[in-house]
Amino acid sequence: MKPMGALPPEFLAQSGNLEIGGRSADDWVIQAGDTPLFVYDMAIVASRIARFRAAMPAIDLHYAIKANPHADVLAAIAPLVDGLDVASSGELAKALLVKPAASVSFAGPGKRDDELAAAITAGSTLNVESEGEAGRAFAIGDRLGIAPRMAVRVNPDIELRGSGMRMGGRASPFGVDAGRAAALVRAIVGAGADWRGFHIYAGSQALDAAAIIDTQAATLALAERLAAEAGYTPPLVNLGGGFGVPYFAGDRTLDVEAVGAALQSAIADCPLTHTGMRYAIELGRWLVAEAGVYLTRIVDIKQSQGEMFVVVDGGLNHQLAASGNFGTVVRRNYPIAVAARMGEDAADPVTVVGPLCTPLDRLGDKVALPAVRVGDLIAIFMAGAYGASASPSAFLGHPPALEIVTVS
Amino acid sequence: MKPMGALPPEFLAQSGNLEIGGRSADDWVIQAGDTPLFVYDMAIVASRIARFRAAMPAIDLHYAIKANPHADVLAAIAPLVDGLDVASSGELAKALLVKPAASVSFAGPGKRDDELAAAITAGSTLNVESEGEAGRAFAIGDRLGIAPRMAVRVNPDIELRGSGMRMGGRASPFGVDAGRAAALVRAIVGAGADWRGFHIYAGSQALDAAAIIDTQAATLALAERLAAEAGYTPPLVNLGGGFGVPYFAGDRTLDVEAVGAALQSAIADCPLTHTGMRYAIELGRWLVAEAGVYLTRIVDIKQSQGEMFVVVDGGLNHQLAASGNFGTVVRRNYPIAVAARMGEDAADPVTVVGPLCTPLDRLGDKVALPAVRVGDLIAIFMAGAYGASASPSAFLGHPPALEIVTVS
Repeated sequence: MKPMGALPPEFLAQSGNLEIGGRSADDWVIQAGDTPLFVYDMAIVASRIARFRAAMPAIDLHYAIKANPHADVLAAIAPLVDGLDVASSGELAKALLVKPAASVSFAGPGKRDDELAAAITAGSTLNVESEGEAGRAFAIGDRLGIAPRMAVRVNPDIELRGSGMRMGGRASPFGVDAGRAAALVRAIVGAGADWRGFHIYAGSQALDAAAIIDTQAATLALAERLAAEAGYTPPLVNLGGGFGVPYFAGDRTLDVEAVGAALQSAIADCPLTHTGMRYAIELGRWLVAEAGVYLTRIVDIKQSQGEMFVVVDGGLNHQLAASGNFGTVVRRNYPIAVAARMGEDAADPVTVVGPLCTPLDRLGDKVALPAVRVGDLIAIFMAGAYGASASPSAFLGHPPALEIVTVS
Repeated sequence: MKPMGALPPEFLAQSGNLEIGGRSADDWVIQAGDTPLFVYDMAIVASRIARFRAAMPAIDLHYAIKANPHADVLAAIAPLVDGLDVASSGELAKALLVKPAASVSFAGPGKRDDELAAAITAGSTLNVESEGEAGRAFAIGDRLGIAPRMAVRVNPDIELRGSGMRMGGRASPFGVDAGRAAALVRAIVGAGADWRGFHIYAGSQALDAAAIIDTQAATLALAERLAAEAGYTPPLVNLGGGFGVPYFAGDRTLDVEAVGAALQSAIADCPLTHTGMRYAIELGRWLVAEAGVYLTRIVDIKQSQGEMFVVVDGGLNHQLAASGNFGTVVRRNYPIAVAARMGEDAADPVTVVGPLCTPLDRLGDKVALPAVRVGDLIAIFMAGAYGASASPSAFLGHPPALEIVTVS
């Protein structure tokens, strides 16, 4: 038997039929019409946002829509956050449907000219990733007769310890090295663009509050230093995100209150703060991951060489990360349950596999589940972020997953 | 500097502008209208098929369309092969557009009832993966008044040594364990279904001819033993595939002629052969991988902490495998070239990254390329299999890749 991660708190104590947003998993499948189905509980998202607001009331909250760009998810989140961060003109178009352009910022190391033009025309902020990109944006702004709104993305000389993905403290395609950032600010201001501040992202999926606290303090110090070097006060400093969620056995829950207390104290001490500028934190995964449940139906149960396989109708084509094949070296089990038998004792361990004709398609490796029958719904938790949109949905020709949110 | 794989033979000796199917990469981009673009050279596919035919003239050749299900690729391949192997009802529908139903077989551990019904109605062969699935197929056949065509997929007690993905010799969701296969054959015949033989797949992406030869010999012996146990002669034995292609530095090219010679000899010695039954080999990757070139355009070139980054307009959203994030533990470089400077000496090493806002989106890590400029086309080779259809195309909201084939 191999361990699995803990169910999110909203599901952990349930017994009997799994309920998501007050309705049973079966009800959601009936409403959606079929499996596989992602259900996103927007009350869980709202509770995470409320927790963030309580922990750090002076900080703006941005939603990084790459985590879950479903239109209904965006519509529900947009009124609750101060900004939307996008990473392509496709995401920009979705964001502009639900948020004023001035509250949308666009990061990404490979923005094409047509993408720059779309953001400049809309009046959204470009998080500029290089001197070359700034030059292209100036030229496009000139051609359009619009002064671009531009923040400078900085590749920080800071690393977020313990993060799932380090994005600072090393050579990087993201942003300009800290040593060149002030010059780029001066070039932006000099070109007549509307300079919006700094974007400094040091890592993601960190569960250690102390590491985030250290990184945020270093980020604040960097922003202060760069502002002094540039000779301009940033209207906004986007401190990045990096708040992690517990996917696997042994993962801790991030102490967001500790992060908030330290950050509130750090910004009170930061000279920049007294200029009236704003700070933002940009979160994707932390806001939505725990809100999503991926529901699949058991198609077959079979024995092979003493191992019991439970074959379900959806797999890595919809939930690549849960199969352990996306950016992870060692495959570990996401939390899994039998939807109709929440809280029941486990029978013998089973291996849950998807329908794809590849050994990679494994959603649960020797996990302890209650007894199962063909037709039962299997729930994979932690499916709200980087699920449907971050998986190879066309692989092997199965239909895309259905997606439904608990508010309309 | 880190090594990269060798370019496929058709491209290795080129100089100047990259030509694919007799036209320049630039021409293909103009014809398709934009980048990123996959170009599939069907002459290369045809040459692989011809090589297979010459090496093993007595063996049927099936194409596993999961490797590349693009409609024009399928249309070009279908007349050149004896059968198409599919893995979902979506793939079945595509196959039936270009091949008679009786030449199509359907494998997959999680076939839903609607998928079984589609195959039975069409008259295609189900590669049955379990006793439970056989039971469902019998029931559906009864309801439809059609005797299902069924082969038995066997989980062999054989492992393909050195294969990228082992699919035999262990507990598996694929097929029934060899010890239960004969009983399943008798059940199928007893239920009045049309038994089509065995499907025995021991692994994939093997580059060692000796390993494939050993596995094929063991597979033949297993088929012979199972036929004797069942008391029925299989009309067809699908020996699986597993022919690998060289992606990485140091990979050898598979000696297909050696495999063919050994297989022709082994089947001549196999008592089953003299019953008039057929053997098939099912290939996907080996037929199409080397025929595909993924063309992306340089959007930005930037320095960070002494490393040169070349940012292109397509990445893991279209070519997940090339980024090293799909089923691989260690990231290695696929072959890469600058389309306009084939055969030129390398300048300093560069890191080629896609446009996605994630450090995972890396197509070439410190690779030696000739000097590049913004706007140049970068070609990623070995892109014909498991590329566009096996990547998370919606991730971060960029458009899907364009795809074009060199014959209409």
